[in-house]
Amino acid sequence: MKKFFKIIYTSLLSLILLISLTSMGSAETTVSSEIGFIFNTLFFLICGFLVMFMAAGFAMLESGMVTSKSVSVICAKNIGLYAISGIMFWVVGYNIAYGIPEGGYIGKFIPWSDASSLETGYSDASDWFFQMVFCATTVSICSGAMAERVKLWPFFLFAAILAGIIYPIVMGWQWGGGWLASIGFSDFAGSTLVHSTGGAAALAGIIILGPRLGRFDRKGKPKAIKPFAASSIPLVTIGVFVLWLGWFGFNGGSQLSLGTFEDAVAISSIFIHTNLAACGGVVAAAVITRVAFGKTDVIQMLNGAIGGLVAITAEPLAPSPLSAILIGAVGGVIVVFGTRLLFSYKLDDVVGAIPAHMFAGIWGTLAAPITNPNATFSSQLIGVLAINIFVFVVSYFIWSIMHNMFGIRLSKEAQMTGTDVTETGVIAYAIRD
Amino acid sequence: MKKFFKIIYTSLLSLILLISLTSMGSAETTVSSEIGFIFNTLFFLICGFLVMFMAAGFAMLESGMVTSKSVSVICAKNIGLYAISGIMFWVVGYNIAYGIPEGGYIGKFIPWSDASSLETGYSDASDWFFQMVFCATTVSICSGAMAERVKLWPFFLFAAILAGIIYPIVMGWQWGGGWLASIGFSDFAGSTLVHSTGGAAALAGIIILGPRLGRFDRKGKPKAIKPFAASSIPLVTIGVFVLWLGWFGFNGGSQLSLGTFEDAVAISSIFIHTNLAACGGVVAAAVITRVAFGKTDVIQMLNGAIGGLVAITAEPLAPSPLSAILIGAVGGVIVVFGTRLLFSYKLDDVVGAIPAHMFAGIWGTLAAPITNPNATFSSQLIGVLAINIFVFVVSYFIWSIMHNMFGIRLSKEAQMTGTDVTETGVIAYAIRD
Amino acid sequence: MKKFFKIIYTSLLSLILLISLTSMGSAETTVSSEIGFIFNTLFFLICGFLVMFMAAGFAMLESGMVTSKSVSVICAKNIGLYAISGIMFWVVGYNIAYGIPEGGYIGKFIPWSDASSLETGYSDASDWFFQMVFCATTVSICSGAMAERVKLWPFFLFAAILAGIIYPIVMGWQWGGGWLASIGFSDFAGSTLVHSTGGAAALAGIIILGPRLGRFDRKGKPKAIKPFAASSIPLVTIGVFVLWLGWFGFNGGSQLSLGTFEDAVAISSIFIHTNLAACGGVVAAAVITRVAFGKTDVIQMLNGAIGGLVAITAEPLAPSPLSAILIGAVGGVIVVFGTRLLFSYKLDDVVGAIPAHMFAGIWGTLAAPITNPNATFSSQLIGVLAINIFVFVVSYFIWSIMHNMFGIRLSKEAQMTGTDVTETGVIAYAIRD
Repeated sequence: MKKFFKIIYTSLLSLILLISLTSMGSAETTVSSEIGFIFNTLFFLICGFLVMFMAAGFAMLESGMVTSKSVSVICAKNIGLYAISGIMFWVVGYNIAYGIPEGGYIGKFIPWSDASSLETGYSDASDWFFQMVFCATTVSICSGAMAERVKLWPFFLFAAILAGIIYPIVMGWQWGGGWLASIGFSDFAGSTLVHSTGGAAALAGIIILGPRLGRFDRKGKPKAIKPFAASSIPLVTIGVFVLWLGWFGFNGGSQLSLGTFEDAVAISSIFIHTNLAACGGVVAAAVITRVAFGKTDVIQMLNGAIGGLVAITAEPLAPSPLSAILIGAVGGVIVVFGTRLLFSYKLDDVVGAIPAHMFAGIWGTLAAPITNPNATFSSQLIGVLAINIFVFVVSYFIWSIMHNMFGIRLSKEAQMTGTDVTETGVIAYAIRD
Repeated sequence: MKKFFKIIYTSLLSLILLISLTSMGSAETTVSSEIGFIFNTLFFLICGFLVMFMAAGFAMLESGMVTSKSVSVICAKNIGLYAISGIMFWVVGYNIAYGIPEGGYIGKFIPWSDASSLETGYSDASDWFFQMVFCATTVSICSGAMAERVKLWPFFLFAAILAGIIYPIVMGWQWGGGWLASIGFSDFAGSTLVHSTGGAAALAGIIILGPRLGRFDRKGKPKAIKPFAASSIPLVTIGVFVLWLGWFGFNGGSQLSLGTFEDAVAISSIFIHTNLAACGGVVAAAVITRVAFGKTDVIQMLNGAIGGLVAITAEPLAPSPLSAILIGAVGGVIVVFGTRLLFSYKLDDVVGAIPAHMFAGIWGTLAAPITNPNATFSSQLIGVLAINIFVFVVSYFIWSIMHNMFGIRLSKEAQMTGTDVTETGVIAYAIRD
Repeated sequence: MKKFFKIIYTSLLSLILLISLTSMGSAETTVSSEIGFIFNTLFFLICGFLVMFMAAGFAMLESGMVTSKSVSVICAKNIGLYAISGIMFWVVGYNIAYGIPEGGYIGKFIPWSDASSLETGYSDASDWFFQMVFCATTVSICSGAMAERVKLWPFFLFAAILAGIIYPIVMGWQWGGGWLASIGFSDFAGSTLVHSTGGAAALAGIIILGPRLGRFDRKGKPKAIKPFAASSIPLVTIGVFVLWLGWFGFNGGSQLSLGTFEDAVAISSIFIHTNLAACGGVVAAAVITRVAFGKTDVIQMLNGAIGGLVAITAEPLAPSPLSAILIGAVGGVIVVFGTRLLFSYKLDDVVGAIPAHMFAGIWGTLAAPITNPNATFSSQLIGVLAINIFVFVVSYFIWSIMHNMFGIRLSKEAQMTGTDVTETGVIAYAIRD
């Protein structure tokens, strides 16, 4: 009887223990994974809308930097490319980057919600949104450089190819788990994948396109103030501040999760490093232009912020604050001298996108091993070369084809009249006294 | 003895089980409901500040669209109407929409915190904030259409009535659980409730107000570029991007909660559908204006984004991405042809608010049953008719009374001098060479 | 045997209870503290990026308020001061305010992540970010007042001292747990600590600097419209809306945590009080300028919003909505009459920063005891006097030294040519017809 009682007793005890532990365990797991799912998804959405707003930052930066006869067109380009990028990244881009999902086809994900489960850790749609705004950023980068002489619809066509095919291929190499990821290439938020890609595409474009009419004199010196003066410095300024704001989403969101203590700590570090790198870029550009060229060039200070931000983007987590400032400062220096380098080759990058995004992106990516022991210089170099060369060559090829097929450069008359009038029929600033 | 022991034993066991399950249960529930409360409240606040920022978007869109002699006044209107809306929605609006709470009176909620409890699932104040910015959006919509010839203070008076009474009545019909909700009307984030309401109020206003001095020639054709040119396209552009950004809060926040896996998935889908609809609107407007009228009209592209966003607002959750693009594209088409429709009736909507908000809002609301099986076309039609007619008639009545009592139209002299000088005494752009 | 069995039984029971309770307890505690940590950190980051964006708001407000010959310089100042503030707050500021941590030294926190633990409740880096943007806000406030005649680099030098030393000292008095905190001074988000500090530093600056060339006629009346007209009212408007947006982060984030039901409720109340106070400021300024001076002054409406926001910042939690409106309205009134007060002393505050930030800040801080029973008027008065006098005297001293060492005022020629040309070599608005 006692024995029987003991068995009952022990088994009951075990049962209680089992039930309480299991139920507790499962309860916890359920709660945790659901809470984590919500945190991760919310974080993608917040960072996503910050990066989405960078489209406005580019629009303002570029509107302010072009001459007042090409502002409406640059606005049309920026709103248009963001729209085109969103659609193209849905049609093919996401699938090219991540691979066609089971039973998948171009433009899939109908409806989105089906694909998400607690196990993935975040809503697929929130990830799509976050990746899409990165894609759009890449395209935004290349719009400014070619301003004031490129035809609108060929630009839109290139934007569609860049957003739907070129960027997704490069993105797949690394973030889609491709060959660059395999060899240990490290690019946290896309100094090379996003910024150099945009810059290299722009470089190919301006080489084929040629400089604006009358931009360089016979000796090859740029005609600085008139008639190529930036139309509005405050618009450039708000553009840069908006980009700076968006960059917290760009780099912070690239942690890809907010579900743990470690994530929260990491993201906070990313925020301050991102901020300090931009600070370094601004100060470096201010000091250099003042010391070397006499005046404190506000445009270079503003582009210096971008250079600093791009430079830290490859590795915003590992650096110390001091390293972040220095990495950003070098980015600012690169912007100043990169601008002059392009001048010396008579390359007309209207907004300075190539120094700020391509050159500073190369620097940031190569600098990652300095602070991140998991990155190696050789892998970084391979990644930088592979992406820049691939994007440049493919872009050069596409621009060439378009150039030969239907022309990409506006006529002399159109440039003299102003592209706003000829392309959109809308004058940008109609200010009457 | 054994029996007694058994009883003790069993009861103790039950007690343990009860305690452990209860305490676990209650602990979980407590944690969950508190975490859910925080998530929901945080989400209302985030979406609320995004929608609040739409006030800046409208201010910039309208500043850029009016002529340079009426920019200061439009700024005064926009900052003023947002302030008035906030106060009026506190004084009476919230209570009209949701019903006077127990022991309540006009302008109650002192202090707010008393009303909130874990059971409600979110802080009352966070809901008030979110609903208030919707109210302000409604008023913002109607400010641009009447620009350049309406008197400032009569406009403020109308803004107070629209924010405090008209919109809250309509809001109560649906979101306050009124008769439209009962008949199954479906308007997720307010294509009709917010956007058509603002548009219909504006339509009534411009009919009574008449067009700007000299806007139409004798044959009724609008004088397009000069002297009615938009003062600043980049300001319109940043305005549209800010609105686009805010719309993630507008539509996303209308999910009203972020406390579960399902909420997070739904909100993510809403984000991408909202974005894709705007993309569709931009591309449609670009293609149509280029193909039909020769030039790629940047203003129509920008307004096309708004049209797409308004169209998807009635049902941003149910559509597939492709449906979202198409719904938005139709919204963009409606904007382009709606603008011309108003022209043909010599109705002078300075910023295109009526096509973008009222017409596209009607389309979006009627289109909801296509993607949402719970919505019926008949209910949608009733809702659209009821709200548009109610708002139009009441607004027409109020504008008429004001017109007869003290006049709402600025004098010929004031319009020729420029409303900035006569109304605020501050020139908008003082640019010296 | 039974006794032995009973002992085993009882001890086993206790063990189960102990295990289940402990494990449940610890599990819960772990989950809760980690979730709380994530919420708090996320909230600091969200509020931090909102406040960061206020730098853009100040840049636009000031760009719009200065004459068109000094816009590039004000942009350079604003991007520069934000960069300098970020670096200086890292180098010394944070440690001055909070005390040097164990083993700490100037510019420590390498790497940041080491310092954070679940016990602190939030990531240290997220707190640093949030505090840094407050510091930058303080410096932003003082940049506009001295516009159009202060030399750029002396201003940057002062910015570094204000961000790195003066503000951190004042901050340490209260938020670092210093003597003001001990005597019960109450300043929730910094009406005095941030806004009066910025304003008092600016006041000292403009006294030493003197007014712009030709600003006042012989009778001391300001030459209002020409040639000192604000360059762009829409830029002022978007600046104010951006500041208003940022203020939700400024005041909301000062709750310092989002980990509980109570926090979420409190933050929601703060949001609506902050909003209503700004509404009050706008309406008050609109009514007063219309009634007292004939025209509805849009600039005063916009500055009235700032005045209302500054006034509520000292105590945004305790007031009722009605109190918040009234506190803000008084702030708006103070801005209108404070502006005229400065005129009467021939003090040339270009953007109205001193009335809006210093005067309204004093009002808000002294008004805190009206709604918060824990604040006393005497403590508030001591805090207001201590901070304003300390900051004014130290700033006066530093500006004087710089004035005597290398001069802080631009030459007559530079002012006539325009500071954009002489300081940055970049014209702000290059608009060609």
